[in-house]
Amino acid sequence: MRIALKVEYHGAPFAGWQRQADQPSVQGAIEAALAKLEPGEHTIAAAGRTDAGVHGLAQVAHCDLQKDWSPFRLSEALNYHLKPDPVSIVDAAVVDDDWHARFSAVERRYLFRILMRRAPATHQAGLVWQINHELDLDAMQAGADYLIGNHDFTTFRSSICQAQSPQKTLDELRVEWVDMPWGPEVHFHVRARSFLHNQVRSFVGTLERVGAGAWSPEDVRDALEAKERAACGPVSPPQGLYLAGVGYPDDPFLKT
Amino acid sequence: MRIALKVEYHGAPFAGWQRQADQPSVQGAIEAALAKLEPGEHTIAAAGRTDAGVHGLAQVAHCDLQKDWSPFRLSEALNYHLKPDPVSIVDAAVVDDDWHARFSAVERRYLFRILMRRAPATHQAGLVWQINHELDLDAMQAGADYLIGNHDFTTFRSSICQAQSPQKTLDELRVEWVDMPWGPEVHFHVRARSFLHNQVRSFVGTLERVGAGAWSPEDVRDALEAKERAACGPVSPPQGLYLAGVGYPDDPFLKT
Repeated sequence: MRIALKVEYHGAPFAGWQRQADQPSVQGAIEAALAKLEPGEHTIAAAGRTDAGVHGLAQVAHCDLQKDWSPFRLSEALNYHLKPDPVSIVDAAVVDDDWHARFSAVERRYLFRILMRRAPATHQAGLVWQINHELDLDAMQAGADYLIGNHDFTTFRSSICQAQSPQKTLDELRVEWVDMPWGPEVHFHVRARSFLHNQVRSFVGTLERVGAGAWSPEDVRDALEAKERAACGPVSPPQGLYLAGVGYPDDPFLKT
Repeated sequence: MRIALKVEYHGAPFAGWQRQADQPSVQGAIEAALAKLEPGEHTIAAAGRTDAGVHGLAQVAHCDLQKDWSPFRLSEALNYHLKPDPVSIVDAAVVDDDWHARFSAVERRYLFRILMRRAPATHQAGLVWQINHELDLDAMQAGADYLIGNHDFTTFRSSICQAQSPQKTLDELRVEWVDMPWGPEVHFHVRARSFLHNQVRSFVGTLERVGAGAWSPEDVRDALEAKERAACGPVSPPQGLYLAGVGYPDDPFLKT
């Protein structure tokens, strides 16, 4: 039977989502936990392969099992075996055998957190990108608005990106001020069918320059229209980035 | 010169605020950093002595220094020497020589975070009290309302409490639902001139029973009126508790 898993994880201790021979990965941790339940090789597929240091809030993966697991018992058993790794199965659901976490997905959502303060973060260290100066959110949103829609995103694409085309449709890039107990944060809510490699971090690093006043909002438009990687602003560090959700034509986790 | 310090810290690696001979403490970490700046013994005083595992968001302490430090340079230098301990000087201000972080304080504010979900927390592990079941916030607030005002809080006082009197005035105990990216949280905002030992954790543990439906709001009133420790509900674990602020007749950190 095929089961979809909704997965939260802390990116710091892992070399990324994808299994690697000699380094810890989120995929490897979950596959090792599955092997505790049903001995043998397990290969899981995920909606998005996050880079080293990037977090998951609601990554979606699927696994194939031989026993007739209830989704609840499976997630409890996996969470037991995942300890002490910071990986947590937050939901599970039985899906059809031809459902695929990656190929059935029609939307990916990302969250990026900036913490605006000078003193080093303690509780949220490694979970935010810390910025020492004020940010102009109106200017950042004005710059972000130029990116929404269907564009050639060559400027905001890592040189190692393997996507066939740089043409993508960005459905949402919303900049939000959030007062947290530990200080003011800026949250970027980013949504598209699919993303190029480093696209969100390229957006955020560029928009940070707008927020700081070093770029105008129109500089973002010009960078987009240049269609060359060199026109991009700095790429933000990974630790503020979260894969926050994956959309499917029918949400497998919807409780009826 | 005397300088007031606003301090954030992660409670997990420390045996509490107070310096101890053989265990790491927040006080000890800051005093060691001060000794890097001005050799010799340093003894700092703080508004509240938090227990092991309890966090600081805006603890206030003061130190006495011989050199003529600018508050900004002092906080930068302390943060440099505090690394890699999760202790951060978030503000500093020159105060009069008779100003005292503890004795000048007229208000303490605490925050307590409950995370309502079953799957183990990853990013916020150690920073929240995790509860597997739903909580009725209206019932919790109704129970909390019985505690506000001037009362004999013997029921909500640890047996090792050294306060002279159990009579205290509770100014605020507000229960708030907060949607965080990692799930729904309940925040308790608690404010008083001073607190008994374990008072906030006794409040929260008791009100959690009300939220779960095991106690009625009126059971909280009865527990208060019993004036005996045995009438208290369970004491909550420390990791959701934050010393969130200290009030003074004149805020030393107010920028003019």
